[in-house]
Amino acid sequence: MTDASLTQDPRPITIASDRGHDEWAGIARSILAQMAPESIVIDLTHSIARGDSRGAGLLLARSVQYLAPGVVVVNVGDVGDPDVRLVAIECAGGNVVFLGPDTGVLAAAVAMVGGADRAVSLDEMSLHLDSPGLVDAGRDVLIPVAAHLATGTELTELGTTIDPATLTPGIMPLPTEEDGALVAEVLAVDYRGWVQLNVDPDDLAEWGERLTVSVNNRDRTVVRVEHGGAVSVGQLGLLTDSVGMLAIVASGSSAADELSVGPTDQITLRQGDDAEAGVVSAAVAVSLGTRPERPALPEEGTSS
Amino acid sequence: MTDASLTQDPRPITIASDRGHDEWAGIARSILAQMAPESIVIDLTHSIARGDSRGAGLLLARSVQYLAPGVVVVNVGDVGDPDVRLVAIECAGGNVVFLGPDTGVLAAAVAMVGGADRAVSLDEMSLHLDSPGLVDAGRDVLIPVAAHLATGTELTELGTTIDPATLTPGIMPLPTEEDGALVAEVLAVDYRGWVQLNVDPDDLAEWGERLTVSVNNRDRTVVRVEHGGAVSVGQLGLLTDSVGMLAIVASGSSAADELSVGPTDQITLRQGDDAEAGVVSAAVAVSLGTRPERPALPEEGTSS
Amino acid sequence: MTDASLTQDPRPITIASDRGHDEWAGIARSILAQMAPESIVIDLTHSIARGDSRGAGLLLARSVQYLAPGVVVVNVGDVGDPDVRLVAIECAGGNVVFLGPDTGVLAAAVAMVGGADRAVSLDEMSLHLDSPGLVDAGRDVLIPVAAHLATGTELTELGTTIDPATLTPGIMPLPTEEDGALVAEVLAVDYRGWVQLNVDPDDLAEWGERLTVSVNNRDRTVVRVEHGGAVSVGQLGLLTDSVGMLAIVASGSSAADELSVGPTDQITLRQGDDAEAGVVSAAVAVSLGTRPERPALPEEGTSS
Repeated sequence: MTDASLTQDPRPITIASDRGHDEWAGIARSILAQMAPESIVIDLTHSIARGDSRGAGLLLARSVQYLAPGVVVVNVGDVGDPDVRLVAIECAGGNVVFLGPDTGVLAAAVAMVGGADRAVSLDEMSLHLDSPGLVDAGRDVLIPVAAHLATGTELTELGTTIDPATLTPGIMPLPTEEDGALVAEVLAVDYRGWVQLNVDPDDLAEWGERLTVSVNNRDRTVVRVEHGGAVSVGQLGLLTDSVGMLAIVASGSSAADELSVGPTDQITLRQGDDAEAGVVSAAVAVSLGTRPERPALPEEGTSS
Repeated sequence: MTDASLTQDPRPITIASDRGHDEWAGIARSILAQMAPESIVIDLTHSIARGDSRGAGLLLARSVQYLAPGVVVVNVGDVGDPDVRLVAIECAGGNVVFLGPDTGVLAAAVAMVGGADRAVSLDEMSLHLDSPGLVDAGRDVLIPVAAHLATGTELTELGTTIDPATLTPGIMPLPTEEDGALVAEVLAVDYRGWVQLNVDPDDLAEWGERLTVSVNNRDRTVVRVEHGGAVSVGQLGLLTDSVGMLAIVASGSSAADELSVGPTDQITLRQGDDAEAGVVSAAVAVSLGTRPERPALPEEGTSS
Repeated sequence: MTDASLTQDPRPITIASDRGHDEWAGIARSILAQMAPESIVIDLTHSIARGDSRGAGLLLARSVQYLAPGVVVVNVGDVGDPDVRLVAIECAGGNVVFLGPDTGVLAAAVAMVGGADRAVSLDEMSLHLDSPGLVDAGRDVLIPVAAHLATGTELTELGTTIDPATLTPGIMPLPTEEDGALVAEVLAVDYRGWVQLNVDPDDLAEWGERLTVSVNNRDRTVVRVEHGGAVSVGQLGLLTDSVGMLAIVASGSSAADELSVGPTDQITLRQGDDAEAGVVSAAVAVSLGTRPERPALPEEGTSS
């Protein structure tokens, strides 16, 4: 539970936000260049849709296994709302500390790396920057606190310790079973129009090579494929994507457009003609305090 | 007036441009990686609207207090026009050197950090890169000169010394008073649709909680609020934004859309019913040679 | 042919992709921060059009003279297609190694720096990252291999040595002569709407000050100018652009819009009234194994 396990000193700082391409990210980097000049700073992305906590949470969850151990700043939504508590959540034996609003946006990523070890509310004002006006919680709180953390400040110095069990949970949509069919949800649509589902490939391991998907009362056949290039023109394919989830893909076009679906839409999957499905049920809350298993962080930075 | 006051050696290099997401910024970084490999390089933003010197100048002015002391490159507009003089302007006792076209785009930022101490025209050609064709003044002049400055070349070696008083001034729009009303100008619209005005909160300190704004002959009531979340649906709020200027905000929508305004549009502010306004007058030119007061640069890079 | 000629150790890593602004580039940087934390990482651009190998190849060719000697990763198109061979191509006496798909996308850049010295197929799986699902060849192969190369792994350890002559050539469109006219092709349209042609200025050196361009059976006069600002309103100008190729430009508008042309469109150039053209002929394949002449890489990183 000390910083001794970290591989890099000072720690890398990763930033994700919904602020787009204006000067916010540049100002964040400018502050870090002064407060933590030795830290590697990584812009994960600033193109999260405005205020899309669900999308941001899923993006973090699928990215977290690749992130550099260190400090991860998440600036999504109206983090300046005084009703929103800003928190630091330490995970993985001190290898990662997430900084962001306690809106549930961090919950899935925290769960992916084993749950919260410790948490604090970022109420130690002396570590924040003075604002010339309204507080920009990203610029004035999250970024300077990240710099302090990266350069050696202890977690407990950031503010009041809080019980991880009181952190806002994120709702991870899980597929449900209905009459042998599987009702899934679209997690995300990627740059190629692939439709990522909330379904683990193991859940459908016993199903056959051909399935039926129903969206908006219309049925389409999907065929198992190994990769996107194996889908025939006009056909829909089903594969395990590069994140490890099931995705529906099309050939030379966007499967999302073909199906007219987007994030949060429901898709029902059925076996080819008749067979039984075997899938878990119901949406559950991700509990931040639990630690299902130690995360598989990338190997520490060595080569040759 | 020496480099001794700088906190980092070599100096950080910050780049702002209107070049968008093509390879220009990457080539700039590639050149800097070879000529100043130890410098921290920060992309402030490359999403300034094409040739928008006014917008770029305001962006720099509101950002400058956060920038890392060092070299700031501004590549906006047709900097390759042979009629445009490229200059270096040293400010704040050598803490900051701005590089860019002498079109007025740098004036507001220079004024914010106390005015120009020294200036040179970038006519020492031996420091520039050869071009395979037409000179790209950003790539071939501003970037290599920034690298030289960051790694120790003296300002005076960059070219002919010029009198700061001969630099092109920027026009900072100031609000004007008319019959007790305040005629303001929209400086910028931010990512949430907040309408930033050229009005210092102190100018309206004596005004009440409710004001009237007039745009295009239509009156709307605005109510003072502490933050964006405090605006009721359908209402317009007035607050001091995170940059320290007055802004008009809406609830769950864009105030700019509500008022149908954009940068440079005029908005007239009146007190709720009857009261006296107390505001300064007339647009004035920002003189680069003056030094109103020592700037409030961010604290030097320390932590813990 | 050793790494001794390199100016920086570890080597800089430059990344170009068509992945846009999602988290791909951030994950690539996260992996590099762990595997090659000392390397400078440069995002050349991630805004190449999806799968546009031609555009990507031309972008690399015009950028390569500015790139930092080191490792250049090109992640364009469906690099995950199992039919596509991933390769490393070493050029310029070991100063540059290109990593990417063997689709021809690297050919023009390789030719620009003197042709391929050595090449290997990236089939040494132990250097790749395990994928949680489908292999993302950029994330799981190109990026970790780049980290290994940057930190000292020998080229030959990356996989099976291949004969550079077997690499897929890129087709560089060359202008053709027809009845004294020159049939050119639009290589690219830049951010200002300038139309870059596949014509070296020397090819038209003997032509006069006024030329005729024909597009879609419509003739327009173009006048030689020194820079974009010298074009009169309503006129089209012809100049040598900042990359060293001929470009057609307009005043205050997009020449590409004026002519209704885009990349790959043909434009016929004729001398003012009647004269003889003198230009080379026919499209040729760029052979990766040849080494026309030693490249003019930027001067090694020194200053003052």
